[in-house]
Amino acid sequence: MHEGNRTEIATLGEFGLIKHLTEDIKLENKESVYGIGDDAAVLSYPDKQVLVTTDLLMEGVHFDLVYTPLKHLGYKSAMVNFSDIYAMNGTPKQITVSLAVSKRFCIEDLEDFYDGVKLACQQHHVDIVGGDTTSSVTGLAISITCIGEADKDQVVYRNGAKETDLICVSGDLGAAYMGLQLLEREKAVFQGEKDVQPDFAGKEYLLERILKPEARRDIIESLAKAGIKPTAMMDISDGLSSELMHICSQSKTGCRVYEERIPIDYQTAVMAEEFNMNLSTCALNGGEDYELLFTVPLTAHEQVSQIEGVKVIGYITKPDLGCALITRDGTELELKAQGWNPLK
Amino acid sequence: MHEGNRTEIATLGEFGLIKHLTEDIKLENKESVYGIGDDAAVLSYPDKQVLVTTDLLMEGVHFDLVYTPLKHLGYKSAMVNFSDIYAMNGTPKQITVSLAVSKRFCIEDLEDFYDGVKLACQQHHVDIVGGDTTSSVTGLAISITCIGEADKDQVVYRNGAKETDLICVSGDLGAAYMGLQLLEREKAVFQGEKDVQPDFAGKEYLLERILKPEARRDIIESLAKAGIKPTAMMDISDGLSSELMHICSQSKTGCRVYEERIPIDYQTAVMAEEFNMNLSTCALNGGEDYELLFTVPLTAHEQVSQIEGVKVIGYITKPDLGCALITRDGTELELKAQGWNPLK
Repeated sequence: MHEGNRTEIATLGEFGLIKHLTEDIKLENKESVYGIGDDAAVLSYPDKQVLVTTDLLMEGVHFDLVYTPLKHLGYKSAMVNFSDIYAMNGTPKQITVSLAVSKRFCIEDLEDFYDGVKLACQQHHVDIVGGDTTSSVTGLAISITCIGEADKDQVVYRNGAKETDLICVSGDLGAAYMGLQLLEREKAVFQGEKDVQPDFAGKEYLLERILKPEARRDIIESLAKAGIKPTAMMDISDGLSSELMHICSQSKTGCRVYEERIPIDYQTAVMAEEFNMNLSTCALNGGEDYELLFTVPLTAHEQVSQIEGVKVIGYITKPDLGCALITRDGTELELKAQGWNPLK
Repeated sequence: MHEGNRTEIATLGEFGLIKHLTEDIKLENKESVYGIGDDAAVLSYPDKQVLVTTDLLMEGVHFDLVYTPLKHLGYKSAMVNFSDIYAMNGTPKQITVSLAVSKRFCIEDLEDFYDGVKLACQQHHVDIVGGDTTSSVTGLAISITCIGEADKDQVVYRNGAKETDLICVSGDLGAAYMGLQLLEREKAVFQGEKDVQPDFAGKEYLLERILKPEARRDIIESLAKAGIKPTAMMDISDGLSSELMHICSQSKTGCRVYEERIPIDYQTAVMAEEFNMNLSTCALNGGEDYELLFTVPLTAHEQVSQIEGVKVIGYITKPDLGCALITRDGTELELKAQGWNPLK
């Protein structure tokens, strides 16, 4: 947050502030008929299904400004919503951004936040079409709604997994969680001791995963190119275990996942060792990876295996077999959703 | 809020809570393809324009739980979003509801809130298709997004007013503001003194206007029936002056409004007298009335005058004449937007 050059928000007022933050926004997509400036945005989706997802993020619960730069926070807030649209096999097209800020924040802070949102939007060709900025008694609240599109027969739900389907995951898991542990450990440094530098050498990837996650548009495109429509899909925000159980319960199936097949980055492994944590537990329950978890028919095995950044980690079973992890020594462990729960 | 029978939110957890609050929700509209339970809702609008509006409401800024029952708050939160869709000459069809709650709130509180949202949705045939419940460090945050539809050539923006157009307003103004003053005056009673009852006799209408506003679907329907498409329209949330100036600045016009024509309810007038406030100031700047402000061509004068609950209050002028109020004694006063500003 800005400490030196601060312009107080009250100097612009509500309408002035919104204008200031949004005046350089241009609409890119033909589906965005009218954006910011009226009672509602106007969109046009004559030949597509419309996808809508929304997120409410609260300071102190979903993010910690001690170690999260506001630009990264803006970027991530947009990105996690794009991720939800990709997880439906769709393409994000518009977002609305609403902020509630306390007097602690200045105009420069909000500019940083918006810069992050705009960068994410540019990269994914998404238009900012609405939202507002208002005040809060304490802290920052961020509300983002993302609208996307998908061809009518291409929407992928969580409930379509079938027995013998292969379970696939993109990227690697557990790194965001490890990045968070690292930031929490170094938090004291951010908060004061000026001569001490946080020790992040060799751990940049972990920080990037927690502070600047990327929504996997590339995987959706690769799947389309390979002619594969997943039978079920979701993004991994609460942890692999939790998400697998959602797919299985909604699809009325069970599953088997192989511990040795769960993709884990080298830095994640080193960090888990340093923290004396069980690596698989981190990868299974860490959350915030924003990778895609999906199932494909067994017949797509050849093609899906050739997609870069996708790994087959198990298969779907009959429901009465339950959800289990097969450990490296062949033991079956029942999967439990120990994912991040903000209400506990 | 519930004080006796309290069920702590942690007993259900995040997914359990969302399930509990939303399990009786059924989708009514054919445009709602898939609702709660996946990464995004799926909607279908093949022949219409899609309207999207969103609101972020913060405890202590936008509402005071000391005198706002949670059911009313849920009702109002939904209603003000419907109002934005009607203000585009559209029909609301879906909403998403996200809440962030601190430990002060129990499951019964959230049930009350959702009951209010559901009631508003039933009355306006709107489907709840998404959202979630998460935690906050302090207070309650409410984020609502409403999606609606309009025929392609029927969307009404703020920027279409033309010189000589008539300025019309629905219902009456200033009552919500007076209701708020009344609640603030009686606040001490709500907060403790058990034997004293708040004194609301004869002022029920004012309370209803602030606590349970109604979105003016009926006016949109009457206009359609009369074959009138307004040239510009918005809903009055920040006060008549402020909204008039939005329409005029976006339409690049001026306006003249007659003080004596501004519709004011009897109870509003009595209350203004009791509080020793200028009645016209209240009606011009009060806000939260959620009435519709719109302009129609001069040729529609006859038809618009016959619509129940609509009053012509002035006319649109050339831009260089500015925006002014003509007082009862014929003086021209420049209009100023003194509407409610949460950032000041």
